[in-house]
Amino acid sequence: MLTLLFYNKVESLKVYHDITEIKNKIYNLKNGIFWLDLVSPGDEEVSLLKEVFQFHPLAIEDCLYRLQRPKLDEYDNYFFMVMHAFSHHSAKEPVEFDAFISNNFVITFHWAPLSFIDGLVDRFVKNPVVFEKGVDFLLYSITDALVDEYFPLLDDIEDRLSEIEETTFKHPDRHLPSRIFDIKRDILNLRKTLSAQREVFNLLLRHDFPFIREESRLFFMDVYDHIFRLFDTVDMFFERASGALESYLTVVSNLTNEIMKVLTVFTAVMMPLSLIAGIYGMNFKYMPELSWRLGYPFALLLMVLTALGLLYYFKKKNWI
Amino acid sequence: MLTLLFYNKVESLKVYHDITEIKNKIYNLKNGIFWLDLVSPGDEEVSLLKEVFQFHPLAIEDCLYRLQRPKLDEYDNYFFMVMHAFSHHSAKEPVEFDAFISNNFVITFHWAPLSFIDGLVDRFVKNPVVFEKGVDFLLYSITDALVDEYFPLLDDIEDRLSEIEETTFKHPDRHLPSRIFDIKRDILNLRKTLSAQREVFNLLLRHDFPFIREESRLFFMDVYDHIFRLFDTVDMFFERASGALESYLTVVSNLTNEIMKVLTVFTAVMMPLSLIAGIYGMNFKYMPELSWRLGYPFALLLMVLTALGLLYYFKKKNWI
Amino acid sequence: MLTLLFYNKVESLKVYHDITEIKNKIYNLKNGIFWLDLVSPGDEEVSLLKEVFQFHPLAIEDCLYRLQRPKLDEYDNYFFMVMHAFSHHSAKEPVEFDAFISNNFVITFHWAPLSFIDGLVDRFVKNPVVFEKGVDFLLYSITDALVDEYFPLLDDIEDRLSEIEETTFKHPDRHLPSRIFDIKRDILNLRKTLSAQREVFNLLLRHDFPFIREESRLFFMDVYDHIFRLFDTVDMFFERASGALESYLTVVSNLTNEIMKVLTVFTAVMMPLSLIAGIYGMNFKYMPELSWRLGYPFALLLMVLTALGLLYYFKKKNWI
Amino acid sequence: MLTLLFYNKVESLKVYHDITEIKNKIYNLKNGIFWLDLVSPGDEEVSLLKEVFQFHPLAIEDCLYRLQRPKLDEYDNYFFMVMHAFSHHSAKEPVEFDAFISNNFVITFHWAPLSFIDGLVDRFVKNPVVFEKGVDFLLYSITDALVDEYFPLLDDIEDRLSEIEETTFKHPDRHLPSRIFDIKRDILNLRKTLSAQREVFNLLLRHDFPFIREESRLFFMDVYDHIFRLFDTVDMFFERASGALESYLTVVSNLTNEIMKVLTVFTAVMMPLSLIAGIYGMNFKYMPELSWRLGYPFALLLMVLTALGLLYYFKKKNWI
Amino acid sequence: MLTLLFYNKVESLKVYHDITEIKNKIYNLKNGIFWLDLVSPGDEEVSLLKEVFQFHPLAIEDCLYRLQRPKLDEYDNYFFMVMHAFSHHSAKEPVEFDAFISNNFVITFHWAPLSFIDGLVDRFVKNPVVFEKGVDFLLYSITDALVDEYFPLLDDIEDRLSEIEETTFKHPDRHLPSRIFDIKRDILNLRKTLSAQREVFNLLLRHDFPFIREESRLFFMDVYDHIFRLFDTVDMFFERASGALESYLTVVSNLTNEIMKVLTVFTAVMMPLSLIAGIYGMNFKYMPELSWRLGYPFALLLMVLTALGLLYYFKKKNWI
Repeated sequence: MLTLLFYNKVESLKVYHDITEIKNKIYNLKNGIFWLDLVSPGDEEVSLLKEVFQFHPLAIEDCLYRLQRPKLDEYDNYFFMVMHAFSHHSAKEPVEFDAFISNNFVITFHWAPLSFIDGLVDRFVKNPVVFEKGVDFLLYSITDALVDEYFPLLDDIEDRLSEIEETTFKHPDRHLPSRIFDIKRDILNLRKTLSAQREVFNLLLRHDFPFIREESRLFFMDVYDHIFRLFDTVDMFFERASGALESYLTVVSNLTNEIMKVLTVFTAVMMPLSLIAGIYGMNFKYMPELSWRLGYPFALLLMVLTALGLLYYFKKKNWI
Repeated sequence: MLTLLFYNKVESLKVYHDITEIKNKIYNLKNGIFWLDLVSPGDEEVSLLKEVFQFHPLAIEDCLYRLQRPKLDEYDNYFFMVMHAFSHHSAKEPVEFDAFISNNFVITFHWAPLSFIDGLVDRFVKNPVVFEKGVDFLLYSITDALVDEYFPLLDDIEDRLSEIEETTFKHPDRHLPSRIFDIKRDILNLRKTLSAQREVFNLLLRHDFPFIREESRLFFMDVYDHIFRLFDTVDMFFERASGALESYLTVVSNLTNEIMKVLTVFTAVMMPLSLIAGIYGMNFKYMPELSWRLGYPFALLLMVLTALGLLYYFKKKNWI
Repeated sequence: MLTLLFYNKVESLKVYHDITEIKNKIYNLKNGIFWLDLVSPGDEEVSLLKEVFQFHPLAIEDCLYRLQRPKLDEYDNYFFMVMHAFSHHSAKEPVEFDAFISNNFVITFHWAPLSFIDGLVDRFVKNPVVFEKGVDFLLYSITDALVDEYFPLLDDIEDRLSEIEETTFKHPDRHLPSRIFDIKRDILNLRKTLSAQREVFNLLLRHDFPFIREESRLFFMDVYDHIFRLFDTVDMFFERASGALESYLTVVSNLTNEIMKVLTVFTAVMMPLSLIAGIYGMNFKYMPELSWRLGYPFALLLMVLTALGLLYYFKKKNWI
Repeated sequence: MLTLLFYNKVESLKVYHDITEIKNKIYNLKNGIFWLDLVSPGDEEVSLLKEVFQFHPLAIEDCLYRLQRPKLDEYDNYFFMVMHAFSHHSAKEPVEFDAFISNNFVITFHWAPLSFIDGLVDRFVKNPVVFEKGVDFLLYSITDALVDEYFPLLDDIEDRLSEIEETTFKHPDRHLPSRIFDIKRDILNLRKTLSAQREVFNLLLRHDFPFIREESRLFFMDVYDHIFRLFDTVDMFFERASGALESYLTVVSNLTNEIMKVLTVFTAVMMPLSLIAGIYGMNFKYMPELSWRLGYPFALLLMVLTALGLLYYFKKKNWI
Repeated sequence: MLTLLFYNKVESLKVYHDITEIKNKIYNLKNGIFWLDLVSPGDEEVSLLKEVFQFHPLAIEDCLYRLQRPKLDEYDNYFFMVMHAFSHHSAKEPVEFDAFISNNFVITFHWAPLSFIDGLVDRFVKNPVVFEKGVDFLLYSITDALVDEYFPLLDDIEDRLSEIEETTFKHPDRHLPSRIFDIKRDILNLRKTLSAQREVFNLLLRHDFPFIREESRLFFMDVYDHIFRLFDTVDMFFERASGALESYLTVVSNLTNEIMKVLTVFTAVMMPLSLIAGIYGMNFKYMPELSWRLGYPFALLLMVLTALGLLYYFKKKNWI
C-alpha cells in the first residue's frame, strides 16, 4: 500500500494513495516536500524506487531482503537508513523499517503495517505543522514515534521479569528456567537491535549530513537519549534475568539441602528404634528383658527416649 | 515552591518566595546573579521557564517527565544539566535534579524537597561569599553538596553488605540470597546513575563552556574526583555482593556435604547392627548361638564392636 | 589446477587452463584484466607467483603454509589478502583463501576446490559484465560469494542449537554437555575467523587503496555489513550455547532434587511401617496386643494410617 | 613531625626538624633545593602549607581528609600528587602519601610514619648526590622507594595464595572459602590502588611537566614499568584466587559424590541381607528351610554370596 | 659465555669467543656490523655493557634483575628490547631475552643457553647473507627464531588439553581439576607474556625507529602476525580449558545424579520387601496367613510382585 503526504505552502498537506496520481505528483514536484510510505508494496510499487527515484540497487536490495542490521548509508544526494520497528499487531518480532532521506522527501518502507505510522499520518493530516518545519523535522517525528514504540515493549518485559523474580523466591517451579531463558533471548535480541540503532543515531549526530540543520540536531539528540535510556534499561534487564537464574539455582540448592535434612532426620531417628525392636525380636533363649513384666513398656520407653534424644540433637543443630 | 536567592554588590543577598516578586526581580535584573530553585512547582511556576526564560521545549520536557539519565545539553546561551540527587527524606529513590546554567543565573528544578538544598540556602544567607565568586562557583557549591549526599548512601550499603558477609559464614539462612539480590539491584542502579554523572562532569571539564572559568575548573575536577571515588567504591561493592552470593553457595554446598556425612555415618553404622539383630531373629530350628547361655550378650557385644569398627573407619576418613 | 579468465574489450572473456598458454597470455598482456585461480597448485604452478609476478617471498610463504589468520598486507603495487573460505565438500574445516590484487588482475590461491569459485567461473563465462566493471568489482564479486558461503554454515549451527535447546528441557541426556561443547568450539572458531575477516574489510574501507574506486566502496561496505551480521549472529549463538549449558545444569539439579524427594518420601513412609512391624515382632512375654483378636488388623490399620498421615504431610509440602 | 633536607652547592645537605628554623630556611632560600617531609603534622605544621607555600585549598584539603584516590593535579607553579604507600609498621592498610612538586622543592605529607622515608633520609644524608641531580631525580628516588615497598606485600599475598592452593587439593576444610574471600578483597583493594597509580605515572610521562626534564623521563618510565608489573601480577593473583575458589567447589562436589557412593554401596549391600534375615524371621508354619539341618549356614551363605555379588557389581562400576 | 659474530665486506663473517679479542675487535670497528651474544655472563663480561658500550644504567639493571615484562625502550642512539624466550632445555620457564640494537650492532643477553641462538649462529656461520642485509634484518632473524620457539610449546599445551578433554567425558577422575588448573596457569602466564610481546612489536611497527628501514618493516609485520596468531591460539586454549572444567563439573553432577538414582531405586525396592517380611514376622496370635499351607510362597510371591511393580515404575521414569 502506498501513502503519499504531499505538502507545499499553497495547497498545504494532501494525501494520495493511488500509484498513478503519486507518480504524477512526484514528477511535477516543485517547492514541495513529501513523505511517501510503502507498506508491503507489490512489484510495481517497488519499481517506483528503482525507476522514479533511481536509488542505488544495494539500498533497494536491503529493503527487499529482510532482516538487515540497523545502519546508515550515505549516497550522493540522499541517505538510506535501516531501523527496526515494533508494531502493536505483532508485539515481539521486529519489523525492518527503511527510510530514504533527501532534501525534499522522506520515503519509508516496511513489510508490515505499523500502528505508529497510521497515528502519524492522522496527526499530520490534522496539523501539517511538521511539514512546514522541513524534512529533518519530519524525519525526527517519524523516528521519535518509532522509538516510543519500544517503551511498551520494555514495560512488558519488565512485567514478566518482576513476575519471575517474585515466583523464584515464593514458589519456584521447574518451568522457571525455561521461562528465564526465553526472556533472556528476547532481551538479547532487543539489545542487539538497540545497540545498532544507537550507532545509527550517533552517526547522524556526529556526521555532517546536509539535510539535517544545526537547529534540529537537538531533536535527534533527544531521540538518541531515548535510545540510550532504552539500551541502559535493557542492559539492566539482562543483569536482572541472569540474577533471577542465579537465585533460582540457590533456591533449588537450598531445597535440596532441606530435603536432605528431612531424609537424614527421619533415617537417623527411625533406624535406632528399628534396631531396638530388632534386638527384642531376637530369638535367644536367655534374654532376661523378654520375661520382665514391664519389658514391653520398657522397650517402648527406650524407643521414645532415643527418639527424643535424637530430635533434641537435630534441634540443636538447627536442622528441624 | 520557589526560592530565589538574588545577589548584587549593592544589596548583597536577598531571598524571595513570592512568584510575582520573583518575576519582577528577574525582569529588572541588572548586574546581579541569582539562583532560583523550583521544588515540585505548579503550572504557573513551570511557565516561568517557558515564558520568562524561554528555555528550549525539549529541556523543559525533560524536567517534567521523570526520570531522565544524567546528561549535559548545550543550548545557545545556557546549558542544561540533569543529575540524580538523593534526599534524606526518601533515602533510596533518586530524585531527578535539573539545572539551567547561564552567565548570570543557576536555575534548579526538582520534584521532591532535598535536604542539601535547604542546607545550602541557609549557608548562603548567612554568608553570600559564594555569589561573589560567580555563577560557576555557585554551580560548583550546589553540585558538590549534591554529590556529598551520596556518601551516607554508600555507607548504608556498606553496612548492609558487611552484615550480609558476616551472616554468610556464621549462620547462613535461606533468606540471604534474596537480600543479596536486593542489594545488588540497589548497587546496579547506583552504578548506572554514577556512570552517567561521571560522564556529565567529564564533559564539563573537557569541553569549553563559556560560563566556567579556567580557575574554577579545579573545583569541578574535585567533584569529578569524588564521583570517580564513589564509582570505584560502588564497583567494589558489586564485586563484594557477587562474592557474598558465591560464598553463600559454597556454604550451602558445604552444609549439604555435612548433612550427607551425618546421614551416611548413621546409615552405615545402624544397618549392620540391624542385620545382626535380624539374623538372630531368624526362626531356624538349628541355630547354635540361640541356645548359648551368653548368646544375647554375645550378640550385643558383636553389635558394639561392629559399631566401634565402623566409627573408627569414618573417623579415619575425617567424616566425624 | 590453474584457471585463467582473461578479458579485454576486443576478445571479451576467454578461459585457459594450460600453464604455458597462461604464461604466454600474461607476458603479452595489454589493456586486459584477468583473474587467475590456483587450486592445490604444484611446484611449477607456484613458481608462477615467484617468477612471473615476483610477489614478495613472505606473501608466497603465507600461501604455502596454512592456516594463516585473515589479514591484508599492502605491497608496492599490489596487495595481498588472506581470508577463510568454506566449501560444500568439507563443510566444517575452513580453507585458506589468498588473493593478490593489482590494478589489472586478481590472483586467488587455495588448497582445496571451492564450490563457489566454480559457480563464479560459470557465471563469468556466461556473462562477463563483471570484468567490464574493473578489478575492484571483480574482487567484490569473489569476496561476496565467499562470504555468502558462511550463511548455510550458520543455518546448520542454528539447527543444531535449536535441537539442543529443545532436547535440554524435554529429555536431557548425559551426552548433551559434550554436544554443547562441540558446538561451542565450532562457534568459537568461526567467531575468531569472522573477527579477523571483519578487520580486513574494515581496513579495505578505511584505507585508501589505489585499486578500489570510490564508487565501488559501497559494494565492499555491503560485504562488510554481511560479515558484521554474521559476526553478530555468531555472537548470539555463543550466548545461546552458553545458555543451553546453564539450562542443562539447572535441569540436572532439578532432577537430582526430584530424585531426592522420591527417596525421602519412600524412606520416610516405609521406615515407620517397618518399625511397627518390628515392634510387634518383639518376643516379650507380656505384650497385650499380641493376643488381641484383632491385633493383626489393628497393626495393619496402624500402618495404613501412619502411611496416609505421612503422605498427607508430604503432599502439603508439595513434594508429591 | 617535620624533616627538612636542605641542599645547596655551598653548604651541601643539612637536616632540620625545628619548625622555626625550617620557616627561616625556606624564606631565605636561594639557589637551593629541598625536601620537606611532614608526618602526622599538627595544626601549626599544616599551616606551613597554607601560609608559607600558599597551596590551593583543595590540595590541602585532600591531604587532610583521607583516603584519596591516587591522582595528579596540576596547579600554576607546582603539581600535587596523591599516592598510596605501605609501611612495615602496618602491613595491610595503605597510607595516603601526598606530594607537592615545584621547580626547587618536593614536599611530602603522610599521616603515618613510613619506613622507606626514614631509609631515604639516611641514604641522602650519607650521600646527597640525588639532590645534585635536581628535583625530578629526587621525586623519582622517593616514588621508586615507595613503589618498591609493594613488592614484599605481593610476596606475602603470593605466599598466602600458594598455601591456599595447596590446601584446596590436599585437605580442603570449611574455612577455606572465607580465607579465599579475604584474600580476594585484599587483591581487589590493591588492584584499585595500583590502577589509579599507574594512571598517575602515565600522566606524568605523557604530559609535559616543566619540572621533569627529558633525561629523567626514563627513570619515571622505569617506575611506571614496575607499577605495570605489579598490576599484572595482582591481576594474575586475582585469577588464581578465583581459580582456587572454583577448585574448592569441584573438590567439595567430588567429596559429595564420594560420600554418596559410600552411602549407596552400604545401603545397597546391607538391605538385601536384612531382607534375607527378615524372610527367615517370618513366622509361617510351613517354611521348609527353617527345619533344614543346614538352614542357618545356608542363610548365612546366601547373605555372603549376595553381598559379594553386589560388591562385584559396584567394583565393576568403579564405585569402590 | 660470549659469542661475537663480526662481519664486514672484506673479511666476511668471523666468530670470536675470547673477551680481549672481542674488546679489541669492537674498539677497532669500522664499516662492520656485529652481533654479540652474552649467555650467563660474569662480572667482567657484564662490564662490557657498562664501559665499552656505555648503555644506560637502567637498561643494564633490567638485564641483571630477572624477570622483566617484555618492553621496548628508546635511548639516544640505540634501543633496548626485552622479550621472553623459551628453550628446549627447560621447556616451561621463560628466559628473559634482552637486546640492544644500534645502527651497526645487535647485542643479546640471556641467563640461560637458548637452543635457537645456537642454531642461528651455526646458520650465520655457514651463510652470512643476513649480515649483508643489515642490522634490522639481523634483528628480524633473531626475533623470528625466538617466536618460532613458542609453537612447539603451544603444541605441547594443545596435546595436554586434548587429552584432558577426552578424559573428561570418558573416565573423569578426581585429579582432573588440579590438572586443568595447572594448564590454566600455564596458559595465563603465556598469555601475559605474549600480550606484552605483541605490544613490543606493535610499537616497533608504528613508531619510526631509525635502524629499521621501510623495506624490512614487512618482515617485522610477519613476526607480529605470528605473535598475534599465537595470542589468538592461547586465548582459545584458555576458553577450552575453562570449558573442560565446566564439562568436568557437569559430568560430576551427572554422576551424582546417577548414584542417587541407584540409591533411590535400591532403597525403594528393598524397603517394601522388608516390610512384608517384617509383617509376617510379627508375633500376633491370630494371623490367618501364617497357618496357610502356601503362606510362605504367597509372601515370597507378594515380594516378587511388589519388586516387579516398582521396577516397572522406575523403568517408566527412565531411571533404570
